[in-house]
Amino acid sequence: MRCSKCGNPKVIIKKEQSGQLLCKDCFIESIEKKAIKTIRKEKLLDKKDKVLVALSGGKDSVTALEILNTFREMNVIDICAVTVDEGIDNYRQDGVDIAIRHAKRLGIEHKVVSLKDEYGITLDEIMQKDNHKGSCTYCGVFRRTIINKAAREMGATKIATGHNLDDEVQAIIMNYLEGNTDNLTKLGAKSESKAKEFTVKIKPLREIPEREIGLYVVAKDLEVHFDSCPYAQQSFRGEVSEVLNQLSKKHPTIKYSTLRGYDKIKEVLKKEFKKEYPKGRCERCGEPSANRLCKACTFIEELN
Amino acid sequence: MRCSKCGNPKVIIKKEQSGQLLCKDCFIESIEKKAIKTIRKEKLLDKKDKVLVALSGGKDSVTALEILNTFREMNVIDICAVTVDEGIDNYRQDGVDIAIRHAKRLGIEHKVVSLKDEYGITLDEIMQKDNHKGSCTYCGVFRRTIINKAAREMGATKIATGHNLDDEVQAIIMNYLEGNTDNLTKLGAKSESKAKEFTVKIKPLREIPEREIGLYVVAKDLEVHFDSCPYAQQSFRGEVSEVLNQLSKKHPTIKYSTLRGYDKIKEVLKKEFKKEYPKGRCERCGEPSANRLCKACTFIEELN
Repeated sequence: MRCSKCGNPKVIIKKEQSGQLLCKDCFIESIEKKAIKTIRKEKLLDKKDKVLVALSGGKDSVTALEILNTFREMNVIDICAVTVDEGIDNYRQDGVDIAIRHAKRLGIEHKVVSLKDEYGITLDEIMQKDNHKGSCTYCGVFRRTIINKAAREMGATKIATGHNLDDEVQAIIMNYLEGNTDNLTKLGAKSESKAKEFTVKIKPLREIPEREIGLYVVAKDLEVHFDSCPYAQQSFRGEVSEVLNQLSKKHPTIKYSTLRGYDKIKEVLKKEFKKEYPKGRCERCGEPSANRLCKACTFIEELN
Repeated sequence: MRCSKCGNPKVIIKKEQSGQLLCKDCFIESIEKKAIKTIRKEKLLDKKDKVLVALSGGKDSVTALEILNTFREMNVIDICAVTVDEGIDNYRQDGVDIAIRHAKRLGIEHKVVSLKDEYGITLDEIMQKDNHKGSCTYCGVFRRTIINKAAREMGATKIATGHNLDDEVQAIIMNYLEGNTDNLTKLGAKSESKAKEFTVKIKPLREIPEREIGLYVVAKDLEVHFDSCPYAQQSFRGEVSEVLNQLSKKHPTIKYSTLRGYDKIKEVLKKEFKKEYPKGRCERCGEPSANRLCKACTFIEELN
């Protein structure tokens, strides 16, 4: 058992897809190369971009920050970060602290925004309500709004998220199963918002399996928050994730073939189902919205 | 517990999707109505059609025959049937016998064609070869060729198969997972072959869950071959089927939403990825083929 690249006898991984054996240094290099390949192929970065990393402190966003930081060190881009504190007791604070330490270590501008400060309610408090619609519904909408607002306030030209291959394929399959053709025009390495109020989002880790990101942070000795969200188990996404991992055991390339097929389908769907971006404003918070109230403010009114 | 339609206390099913309770007569009527709805909506039948039913003797094809026969009794269409004997010991003969009895009972023209007679080899013999590519690969290609040829010989204008909702959604998800955009343009209630050598195929049971077809044949006391193919367990389809049934437990409408979403996606994909139908002929058997040899004859040459 020797590294397929350099012959080092200290192998740390057998790649699920290719069967390749890699030592620590070659593995780290392979992950960084893969992210850079995605960045180049999908044209995720432009010179002088100021990239806002949505930094939860988990393995994915810390890896995204780490890899994007190499472009900052080369003076190609500038980086800032935002951490959303959803207000989940015994869970979120560790991630926030870790995010703060990474921002400090790299010397980047960083902001922590809490749901409580922004909307007057925590996710834990929402989950106590009788009429709640499931944790992920709120978390997704509130986080998106907060991150989008932070990007404008911090003058960011791109928002980078840590979505990995597993996240992306789960979303694709969920939307196939739900028959949601509208959402199926929106997934991908780069969002295509034409309205200037929506900062373009990029996913540099989109082709890296979750398992390999987990190993990357260990190999690079990066401090990350490894707990998973206490509400995650209840979700449809969790079921789809389980099913995909089950199929991957016998078909190790299935996540990649799903992604490649989707990318072809998306190009075609986009032409047909593309929606107009909202041109109006939310009466309550001033964020872009197709209706009188944006989604976040609609939820807040329903919950009160 | 009473039938949601007529109040009959003898309920035989609670419909998974709607939660509706039905007695035997109302259940039978609901299945027949649903197939007729698909036939009308998708324009599967034209007056004076001669429909060749691909009749294995299993629950699906027997149900397709039974429902299409109501259109024959009204003199809307004519019906004939073909049964393919793949040569699977301890399995196929029962189905063939049952198919013969149904054809006789209804007084319809019926033909049994064996792989052995047509290609000089049985599926069991193929599976003994060291270089075989998996049972379903051969079975699919040989059956398709035999049925297509029978349709021409018997003067059929349509070929009806017993594909149910589960079959169709399995095929959709398999192709999503494999990223096979070419195949994704081809699934659906009705094939769209423009070449006259390929008889149009229709799937009248496409919106009926497998479980309900199983119950229909029991409720109508139809003789069917209930064994499943001894080779079926090895297939990717089997894994996908299991996964879909697992997801359906908590999300009972998921097969329908997948189907509806796919139908929208297909319309768009067709415009972009539509392939030309082969204009040439197989040198060996004379069937339509894009290459020197058709797929079936290529397999035969490889196996010899």
